[in-house]
Amino acid sequence: MPRSTAKLVFFYLSFWAFLKMSLKFKNAKRIEGLDSNVWIEFTKLAADPSVVNLGQGLPDISPPVYVKEELSRIAAIDNLNQYTRGFGHPSLVKALSCLYEKFYQNQINPYEEILVTVGAYGSLFNAIQGLIDEGDEVIVIVPFYDCYEPMVRMAGATPVFVPLRCKPVDGKKCSSSDWTLDPQELASKFNSKTKAIILNTPHNPLGKVYTKEELQVIADLCIKYDTLCISDEVYEWLVYTGNKHFKIATFPGMWERTITIGSAGKTFSVTGWKLGWSIGPKHLIKHLQTVQQNTVYTCATPLQEALAQALWIDIKRMDDPECYFNSLPKELEVKRDRMVHLLESVGLKPIVPDGGYFIIADVSLLDVDLFDMKDSNEPYDYKFVKWMIKNKKLSAIPVSAFCNAETKLQFEKFVRFCFIKELVDKDFKADIINVKIWS
Amino acid sequence: MPRSTAKLVFFYLSFWAFLKMSLKFKNAKRIEGLDSNVWIEFTKLAADPSVVNLGQGLPDISPPVYVKEELSRIAAIDNLNQYTRGFGHPSLVKALSCLYEKFYQNQINPYEEILVTVGAYGSLFNAIQGLIDEGDEVIVIVPFYDCYEPMVRMAGATPVFVPLRCKPVDGKKCSSSDWTLDPQELASKFNSKTKAIILNTPHNPLGKVYTKEELQVIADLCIKYDTLCISDEVYEWLVYTGNKHFKIATFPGMWERTITIGSAGKTFSVTGWKLGWSIGPKHLIKHLQTVQQNTVYTCATPLQEALAQALWIDIKRMDDPECYFNSLPKELEVKRDRMVHLLESVGLKPIVPDGGYFIIADVSLLDVDLFDMKDSNEPYDYKFVKWMIKNKKLSAIPVSAFCNAETKLQFEKFVRFCFIKELVDKDFKADIINVKIWS
Ligand SMILES: Cc1ncc(COP(=O)(O)O)c(C=O)c1O
Ligand SMILES: Cc1ncc(COP(=O)(O)O)c(C=O)c1O
Repeated sequence: MPRSTAKLVFFYLSFWAFLKMSLKFKNAKRIEGLDSNVWIEFTKLAADPSVVNLGQGLPDISPPVYVKEELSRIAAIDNLNQYTRGFGHPSLVKALSCLYEKFYQNQINPYEEILVTVGAYGSLFNAIQGLIDEGDEVIVIVPFYDCYEPMVRMAGATPVFVPLRCKPVDGKKCSSSDWTLDPQELASKFNSKTKAIILNTPHNPLGKVYTKEELQVIADLCIKYDTLCISDEVYEWLVYTGNKHFKIATFPGMWERTITIGSAGKTFSVTGWKLGWSIGPKHLIKHLQTVQQNTVYTCATPLQEALAQALWIDIKRMDDPECYFNSLPKELEVKRDRMVHLLESVGLKPIVPDGGYFIIADVSLLDVDLFDMKDSNEPYDYKFVKWMIKNKKLSAIPVSAFCNAETKLQFEKFVRFCFIKELVDKDFKADIINVKIWS
Repeated sequence: MPRSTAKLVFFYLSFWAFLKMSLKFKNAKRIEGLDSNVWIEFTKLAADPSVVNLGQGLPDISPPVYVKEELSRIAAIDNLNQYTRGFGHPSLVKALSCLYEKFYQNQINPYEEILVTVGAYGSLFNAIQGLIDEGDEVIVIVPFYDCYEPMVRMAGATPVFVPLRCKPVDGKKCSSSDWTLDPQELASKFNSKTKAIILNTPHNPLGKVYTKEELQVIADLCIKYDTLCISDEVYEWLVYTGNKHFKIATFPGMWERTITIGSAGKTFSVTGWKLGWSIGPKHLIKHLQTVQQNTVYTCATPLQEALAQALWIDIKRMDDPECYFNSLPKELEVKRDRMVHLLESVGLKPIVPDGGYFIIADVSLLDVDLFDMKDSNEPYDYKFVKWMIKNKKLSAIPVSAFCNAETKLQFEKFVRFCFIKELVDKDFKADIINVKIWS
C-alpha cells in the first residue's frame, strides 16, 4: 500500500490502541471525581517562599523538646525500628488507655478498644470503610474538615449535609458559639437509612466547641435513630477560657455507638508524625482493625514508641500548668487574641474561635476588586485568597472548600487563617496585614 | 404488672434493642470475612519470650548505623516534624527518582511518577483501590504474600489463582527456581475481564527470582490482554549469587501498564518505618494519589527525610561493596547457606531460595505425630507450626497461609522460616533445631 495509507493505518491503530488502553487505565469507580483537593491546590500556590502561609494547619512553633528528644533516642534502638503490633504498639495503646480513662467513666481496654492509625485521617478512613456501606446515609455538618465528604463517597454512601447557622449578633464581637445547628433541621436529616453522623468538636474551621446541651441533642437523635457517631476530637486539648470540651462518647447510651478520634499531630504539635487513634467499643473497633490490616497493616514503630514516652511525661502531670495539654492552649489563646485584633485592625470581621487553632473572618467587608482574577466560576473566597497570595503575599484557605456544592455560597465570604504560628507574635502586623497594605 | 412480667418485658426489650443495634454495628460488606490474619494469630502464639521466632519477617540484625543516625538527627529539626507534601516528601521523591533512573530506560518524574506510601502494603492498597473495580478479575500467583487476596476482595474484585508448580528434581538440592508457572495454565487465566496481575519477584515465601524469560511470558500476556501489572519488588536488592533481578516495567510495552512497588523496611532493614513507594506512569500513579489523599493524606515527615538522606549515601556508592544494596545480600547469603544446612541436618528438605530472606522447607518428612493438636480441620502446616511452638519453642509460618482455600492442600507440607536473624549465625543449631531435640 502507498506510504500515506500506511501512515494513516498506523495512526488509526495507535489511536485505537490508545482508546482501548485508556479504558483499562482509568481510575476505579469508587474514586471517580474525588481527585481535587484544596490542600494540594493552595499549598502549590503558597509555595513561593516570599508568601506567608497561614493556610494549612502547620504549626511553626517548636514542638515540646522532650517529644523530639524521645524520637532521637528511640531511633538508635534496633528493635524499635522493626514491625510492631498492627493495631497499635503495646506501650502506646497502654499510655492512651491510661490517659483517656481519666475522661471516660470506664476503663479502656488497650488491645480491644483502641486502634492506632496513620493520623486521625487514617482513623476517619478506617471508621468509614469499616462501618459504612454502599447506599448508607451519613450526616455531615457544614462546614466540615474537607476529607469527610470524599471519604463518605469513596465508601459508596451519600453524605447528607446540615449547616451550622449564625444567629444574628448585633454590635458585639462574633464568636464561634453564635454558630449552631437548628435542632429541627438536624432532626429532619435522620431517617432509617442514616448510618452515622460525623461530629467535629472543637471544630475546624469554625473553632466552635459544642456545649453539653448541643451534644445532648445529637446524642438523643443518634439513640432514637440507632445511628453511629464518628467524633473527630483532634483539637480536644485546645479549648480557650470559658469553654469546656465534652466527649459525646461519655453521654448515656453513646459509648456503644461512638468512635472517638484523636491525633498525635495536634496533641503535641508534630503534624508530621501522622499518628492518630480511634477509641470505642470492641464491637466497632474490631471492624476498623479489619480495615487497618488490609490497608497499611501497622504504623511506624519509632514514632509510636516516642509518642508513648511523651504521653507518659504529660499523663503524670495533668494538673500541672506545665503539662502540654494545659500549656499549649494558654500559649495559643494569646495568639488567638492577637490574631483577632490584627484582623479587626485591617477591617475584617473575625469570628472568635472558642477552640482549635483556626480563625475564620468575613473578607467581603474589604470589598476588594477581584475583577482581574480569572476563573469566574470559582467561589468568592477562592478568588479572594488567590488575589491575596498574589498581591499581599499572604495565603489562607477559602472556607467554601469545607462545604458541599450546595452550601458553598453560604460560606464564600469567609477565609480561614491558622494562628499556631510564631509569626503572629512578631513583626507580623507591620509586614503582612498592615492597614496600609490593605487600604 | 407483676414483677416477673416486668422483668420479662425488660429482657425482651433489651434483647430486641441488642438485635436491632447489632445490625447497624455490623461491619461494612466490603470487609466481610476479611478479618482473619495469619500474622496476628501466629505473632500471638510466638509471644512467649522463650519461643524463638523465625515466623514474621522481622530482621533482628542491626539496621545500618547511618540510617538510625539520620532519624536521630532529623527528629531535632522543628519543621521536619510537620506535614509535608502528601504524595511524597520532596527530598525523598527526588532521591527515589535518582536511584531508579539507573534501572529504567527513562528519567522518572519525582512528582508525577512516584508516590510515597505507608509501606509497600500501602502501595498495594492504593494500587488496588485506585485501579481495580467491582467485578474485575485479578490474577494472583500462589503462594502469595497474604494480603493480596483480601485486598482484591475488599475492592469487590475476584482473585483468579494460578499456582507455581514444582518440576520433579531427582537427587539434587531443591531450589526456588524449580518452581515455575505453566505458561499454558497462566494464559488460560487471562480473559477480557482480567484487569491486573500481581507479580512478586523476588518472591515471598518461595525466594524465587523470576528469570527474564519467565517475565517475558507474563509481559506478553499483559500486552495481549491489555492488563495492568502490579509488581511487588520489595526484596529487589536481596538476590543471591547466580541470579539477577529484572524489572518487568522495563520490558517493551510494560512501563505504561505497570506499578512497581518498593519498601524502605526491606531496603534498609527497618521494617518499623513503614514507608514504601509506587513507581509508574502518570496516568496510573494519579489514581493511586487520589486514593492516598482520601485515606491517609501524607506519610510521616521525619522518616521520609531520614530515608532520603540514607538513600543518598548509598546512591553515591552503588558500585562499592560497602553500599548496603550490595553488602546486605552478601551478609544474607551466608545466613541462607547456614539455614539450609541446619534444616537439612535435622532431616528437613529446604527449597534453597535465590532471593528474599525466607526459606521454605518440607516438614512432612519428619513424620511428627500431630495427633494431640486440636482443630483437626486445620491444614497440616498450621498444626505442625503449633506443635513446633509448643514442643520445640520455635515458631515459623505455615505456607498454606499464603494460599487460597483451593490450593492450601498443595502447600500444606511446607513451613516458612525467616533467616534475617543474628541467631542463625550463633549457637542456634545446638539450642533450637538440634538433631537430638527433633529426634
Ligand atoms: C478536624 C480534623 N480532623 C482530622 C485531621 C487530620 O489529622 P492527622 O494529621 O492526625 O491525620 C485534621 C488535620 O488538620 C483536622 O483538622
Ligand atoms: C512481598 C511483600 N510485599 C509487601 C510487604 C510489605 O512491606 P511493608 O512493610 O513495606 O509494608 C512485605 C512484607 O513482608 C512482603 O513480604
